[in-house]
Amino acid sequence: MRKGEATRQAILDESIRLASTVGLGALTIGTLATQTGMSKSGLFAHFNSKESLQIQALEHAGARFREHVVHPMLAAPRGEPRLRALFDLWLTWVSTGLPGGCLFIAADYEFDDQPGPVRDTLVRDQRDWLETMTRVVGSGIVEGHFAADTDPAQFAQDLFGVVLAYSVTSRLIQDPNAEAYARRAFESLLRAAR
Amino acid sequence: MRKGEATRQAILDESIRLASTVGLGALTIGTLATQTGMSKSGLFAHFNSKESLQIQALEHAGARFREHVVHPMLAAPRGEPRLRALFDLWLTWVSTGLPGGCLFIAADYEFDDQPGPVRDTLVRDQRDWLETMTRVVGSGIVEGHFAADTDPAQFAQDLFGVVLAYSVTSRLIQDPNAEAYARRAFESLLRAAR
Repeated sequence: MRKGEATRQAILDESIRLASTVGLGALTIGTLATQTGMSKSGLFAHFNSKESLQIQALEHAGARFREHVVHPMLAAPRGEPRLRALFDLWLTWVSTGLPGGCLFIAADYEFDDQPGPVRDTLVRDQRDWLETMTRVVGSGIVEGHFAADTDPAQFAQDLFGVVLAYSVTSRLIQDPNAEAYARRAFESLLRAAR
Repeated sequence: MRKGEATRQAILDESIRLASTVGLGALTIGTLATQTGMSKSGLFAHFNSKESLQIQALEHAGARFREHVVHPMLAAPRGEPRLRALFDLWLTWVSTGLPGGCLFIAADYEFDDQPGPVRDTLVRDQRDWLETMTRVVGSGIVEGHFAADTDPAQFAQDLFGVVLAYSVTSRLIQDPNAEAYARRAFESLLRAAR
């Protein structure tokens, strides 16, 4: 990796840590300069606008998510074992992947009413993730783990809701039962699908 | 209502509309001045800091939520009918209550890692709402609509997740099936509780 690219990656690491805490909308060349101690002009050389920085931060967070959730999940056997791996890895990502929780989840609500390329990137990412979950649930039908009339897209939505609620209950409310609630909800979804 | 108080209410109406779209963190005396055409000094006379403005906006949104969701729900008979009313009214609130969706939901993810009085207000509000939902589910056990071993706090969490997912799927992804997903998820929760 060339030095310029290594620097860019280090700045993006810092960007997604910052954005996870203060929100993607508050990630600007200015806030990043303050946070990293780098000069604004140095940061402008890497990211020529706030919007470009925010989109590159989402892409960087996406690469981290694939590395920590999607790729290890694919090592589990198809069907229910893979769905369990997905859920476990996703909860861990929300809890410890970034200091301020999942960047995508927070950005989903922040940018839903702000048209533009940042929102477009988020829509594509979240559609992709729902489709991935739908495929994993579908593999459980093929493997005979779930009933043939299970609706994989509905399951994916429901699982998304479980993790969204877990994020609020664990991070905002800091309820010690947050993980137990999420795991019980997941087991209920599995039970209903069998 | 005195003129000063009427003005304050009108400004708060505008504040929560603005915050629902750009995020509560972006609601400042400066952005509100730009949005309303009022002078910054005039706004400072009503709200003496950004933090005070944000907290008063949350309180104002809370009053609107009680008016549009909590009070009409209490007109429905206890137990399952009241829970159905709660769900319907809440979905409507998320869809049409404010131009940018539910202010509380977006702020939950924005402020979960930002300690201070805004976060404290949110924690109290969300705990209260989860407790209200828990009580409504509990009334369904008393009325004999739900099985005695139903866990009302778990149901409240699960219902929260359904609405959080609905918010992303309807507002960000704009999936035409968003409401159908949410309603099917709700019916599954009711079925499992009976």
